Amino acid sequence: MTRLYNDPVNFVDEATEGFVAAHAQRVCQVPGGVIRSTRSEPNTVAVVIGGGSGHYPAFAGLVGQGLAHGAVMGNLFASPSAQQVYNVCKAANNGAGVLLSFGNYAGDVLHFGQARERLIREGIPCEIVAVIDDVSSASQDEIHKRRGIAGDLTVFKIAAAAAEAGYSLEEVVRVSRAANFRTRSMGVAFDGCTLPGAKDALFHVPSGKMAVGLGIHGEPGISEQEVPSADALAELLVSHLLEEIPDGIDSARGARVSVLLNGLGSIKYEELFVVYRRVHQLLGDAGLEIVEPEVGELVTSLDMAGASLTLFWLDDELERLWQAPADAPAYRKGSLEAAPPVDRSQLDIPDVDAIPPASEVSIAAARRVYQALSATRKIIDQNVEELGRLDAIAGDGDHGIGMQRGVVAAELAAEDAVSRNAGAGTLLRLAAEAWADRAGGTSGAIWGVMLNALSVTLGDEDEPTPAHYASGISKARDDVMTFGKAKLGDKTLVDALVPFSETLERALAAGDDFSDAWRKAVDAAANAAQATAELKPKLGRARPLAEKSLGTPDPGAVSLSMIVAAVQGVIDRQ
Amino acid sequence: MTRLYNDPVNFVDEATEGFVAAHAQRVCQVPGGVIRSTRSEPNTVAVVIGGGSGHYPAFAGLVGQGLAHGAVMGNLFASPSAQQVYNVCKAANNGAGVLLSFGNYAGDVLHFGQARERLIREGIPCEIVAVIDDVSSASQDEIHKRRGIAGDLTVFKIAAAAAEAGYSLEEVVRVSRAANFRTRSMGVAFDGCTLPGAKDALFHVPSGKMAVGLGIHGEPGISEQEVPSADALAELLVSHLLEEIPDGIDSARGARVSVLLNGLGSIKYEELFVVYRRVHQLLGDAGLEIVEPEVGELVTSLDMAGASLTLFWLDDELERLWQAPADAPAYRKGSLEAAPPVDRSQLDIPDVDAIPPASEVSIAAARRVYQALSATRKIIDQNVEELGRLDAIAGDGDHGIGMQRGVVAAELAAEDAVSRNAGAGTLLRLAAEAWADRAGGTSGAIWGVMLNALSVTLGDEDEPTPAHYASGISKARDDVMTFGKAKLGDKTLVDALVPFSETLERALAAGDDFSDAWRKAVDAAANAAQATAELKPKLGRARPLAEKSLGTPDPGAVSLSMIVAAVQGVIDRQ
Repeated sequence: MTRLYNDPVNFVDEATEGFVAAHAQRVCQVPGGVIRSTRSEPNTVAVVIGGGSGHYPAFAGLVGQGLAHGAVMGNLFASPSAQQVYNVCKAANNGAGVLLSFGNYAGDVLHFGQARERLIREGIPCEIVAVIDDVSSASQDEIHKRRGIAGDLTVFKIAAAAAEAGYSLEEVVRVSRAANFRTRSMGVAFDGCTLPGAKDALFHVPSGKMAVGLGIHGEPGISEQEVPSADALAELLVSHLLEEIPDGIDSARGARVSVLLNGLGSIKYEELFVVYRRVHQLLGDAGLEIVEPEVGELVTSLDMAGASLTLFWLDDELERLWQAPADAPAYRKGSLEAAPPVDRSQLDIPDVDAIPPASEVSIAAARRVYQALSATRKIIDQNVEELGRLDAIAGDGDHGIGMQRGVVAAELAAEDAVSRNAGAGTLLRLAAEAWADRAGGTSGAIWGVMLNALSVTLGDEDEPTPAHYASGISKARDDVMTFGKAKLGDKTLVDALVPFSETLERALAAGDDFSDAWRKAVDAAANAAQATAELKPKLGRARPLAEKSLGTPDPGAVSLSMIVAAVQGVIDRQ
Repeated sequence: MTRLYNDPVNFVDEATEGFVAAHAQRVCQVPGGVIRSTRSEPNTVAVVIGGGSGHYPAFAGLVGQGLAHGAVMGNLFASPSAQQVYNVCKAANNGAGVLLSFGNYAGDVLHFGQARERLIREGIPCEIVAVIDDVSSASQDEIHKRRGIAGDLTVFKIAAAAAEAGYSLEEVVRVSRAANFRTRSMGVAFDGCTLPGAKDALFHVPSGKMAVGLGIHGEPGISEQEVPSADALAELLVSHLLEEIPDGIDSARGARVSVLLNGLGSIKYEELFVVYRRVHQLLGDAGLEIVEPEVGELVTSLDMAGASLTLFWLDDELERLWQAPADAPAYRKGSLEAAPPVDRSQLDIPDVDAIPPASEVSIAAARRVYQALSATRKIIDQNVEELGRLDAIAGDGDHGIGMQRGVVAAELAAEDAVSRNAGAGTLLRLAAEAWADRAGGTSGAIWGVMLNALSVTLGDEDEPTPAHYASGISKARDDVMTFGKAKLGDKTLVDALVPFSETLERALAAGDDFSDAWRKAVDAAANAAQATAELKPKLGRARPLAEKSLGTPDPGAVSLSMIVAAVQGVIDRQ
């Protein structure tokens, strides 16, 4: 369990502060994360990595010469917000574009994707490589659905070594994708970890059992068995990974691989070495040549008891890049000449507190948006328990608490924005960031996406008309479906959002005034949310749990319909 | 708990094999431990470190350029044998002598001390610096009794950097002692670790409590309190360490220190960074300049939940040596040019299996010694539970099991030696090593010392006379008292050994035959062992437990008196 913290709310911020104090020679803090404190070659690609905190050395411990240029640090096990990603990228950018790399999780895909769009809009080329090394998380036919675990390191290292060697962004993307498709990992878990201040572990594995393929945040695995001997575990992991030799490699015999044996937190070094002994023998027996293996803690989950094995199938170029020197706080290799310290005044560090100028009409509209957010906060406050109960049937029961955390933060951010005369667009952007930051999880990400879509549509100049709002809501719907990859009928919030958005557009087009049109849309959303009870659940990462939700409305769809109903009152008062 | 192992008996050997397979570029295996696999400068001092296993990266992870030349690896939490230390030193020696450094524990002091004597006898200069950084383990007046914890690293690093810089052995000793006396640590524990295959943890701390100053093997600390906040822990540790500024430093204000914040196993990186944040603030407030701090896992105890803070008070020379580059599997600093691989055929690796030639009379005597060891094994087998029961009153109850493990190994080694025509001296040396290796702990070390004393006295040439045996037993008594620092009346095995040895010498001097003299000595030992029940216990590292033993005979004295009685039968049969 996690024992040492102050106020759990500040855990990540305080850990970051301590990390930067201990490693000032290599990293410095910027809003949203850390970047190198040493100078990089101008006009080289910047590699920015990131994800939730709690996985040290991933991600901040992997920033330094020869490795990443920056790391975006979300809350514990929660994606960073798009704004955080954007901030770190702006500060890390060396003029030749940014490669974003992170483990393939829904929230990260959403937020890094949004940040990428914004960077490109601002003229900074940006590409994404989401790491998909965990063979247990989806079949080979759905390889793009796999999540990223310890194989993160191989992709980050290759991308960074290529950037350091002066590769163009296109070339960095090419070798990073090659590394991604040639990296395969498989993990096991013996027990979960406890978030600071939490009463119980994030998940449990029954005593004496081992969960095979269970994810680093407790996502379901593929089987459960008795804890095996160290040798038997080595045999299990090696045999699974040798069943899936990546395309382009004829046979294991003669192939060159790097090997990562990773401890998740409380499976310790001596145990890992006992397992590695047998891994080394087995890979040798299979005819593989092992190149610069790593045995230790590379991607952890606080003090989770677990381990994973990664095979990284090399070619000549990847081997050269893998062996290139690096000097990050938690990963060092070879020898390199120390770069001089960076001059912070030369960095493009976004002023996250600045409020851009806005028109009077937009400032007035911002006040109405703030009232809508207040109404939203009230309705969520009243329904926290009910939303939690709905979510507990098929999920982890935190939908109510997550929504509450998000909307409280959004309301506070909006209040501050109003006091500083922000326009509607800026107020919504700040509220979106606050919601996504504080809520964490996928629902936080989705509400961040929706408020951001409204923000972009409304801007800080024009007076928003009903058509503006409807168009912003349509964009929110499209962005959620694009970023979140959810379709109508998947039993998610999309099932209420689509009829809401379409009814609103239709009614306005038919000549209804805003209040009437909104009321019709609210009814459509409420009916659709109830109807999700009849839908077959989306069988995603939580298949066994999702099946339990038959007969229960989707909590995300329910909370959406509650919120739009509450906003009716604000519209009617205009 | 420790989950991944095969046969627990092989845990350390298998971990070492895996470690060497993973780090072949930096280390190679020799009997007893590991040495650098890279070439060192000829005629430089070799720094050999070591201790029990289970503390990775201590000790093997700290071998490499700029750090140790070799590490001796004992069993889990048990000192290596003198033979292991000797072997590693012979292989690591670069022609300018050896510095031995290790944490100040009784077993290590014994075995490294014996190895030092043997090396000096063979013409290899050798000195010892036992690390004493743990302020909780004894008062400042008894600083030499303090144990070594994470501060091991500062002493090792300084010694190795000095050796690398070409310092003479005398100069290496000087700076290592300076580092030792300028290093202060304090640790806390929240829960113990479980040895592979053990049913329960080595020790427990009550849930929700923190043991202040508890040792890394569960040795008693100074107090117990509620688990504090991270900031309060930082304040506790810093305030204690600032109360003890080493001699020669006028005040904290303006002093330069390195800081190690060490996790023992399952207190993880993020927690350590949260604590470090406050440590950094507090040391800054006190006016200290922090130089190259380390936050991470430097000296662990498997997955023990605990942490320690070390302050290393620098002077100009120590700061330069602390900052010098190093490249070990688990500790890297700065940049250095990679040294070429070592040529193993040039190393002086002792052939641990060789049996030196012996005279016929010594070979015959060896058979009698073997019979005595068999009789010893039988009497221990019969009394394992009784010895365990006696030990459980004041100790951890493993005296019977430890003696049994030791004597079984010694008998097997002796049987093998007999089959290969070893002389009495060689047989006893091999039996001593096997006993110390397998028994572990202080009693294993002491029996190793005693059999080694007999080995040296008997040799492989002369026919042993009763006077030889008596003289060997006197040497055993002297060596145990010297190495073990135990006096008569300390309620240890010495209380039976002294009257046994003195009675035997007196009776032989008075003209008794060997059998009669031995019988008188046996009686003296038995009476003395019983009499230990009346003695006040030695108040050492386990003060609260030791007090419980009032009224109970010392198990070590009892087992000694049992053994010498059993040997009577062998003597009578001659």
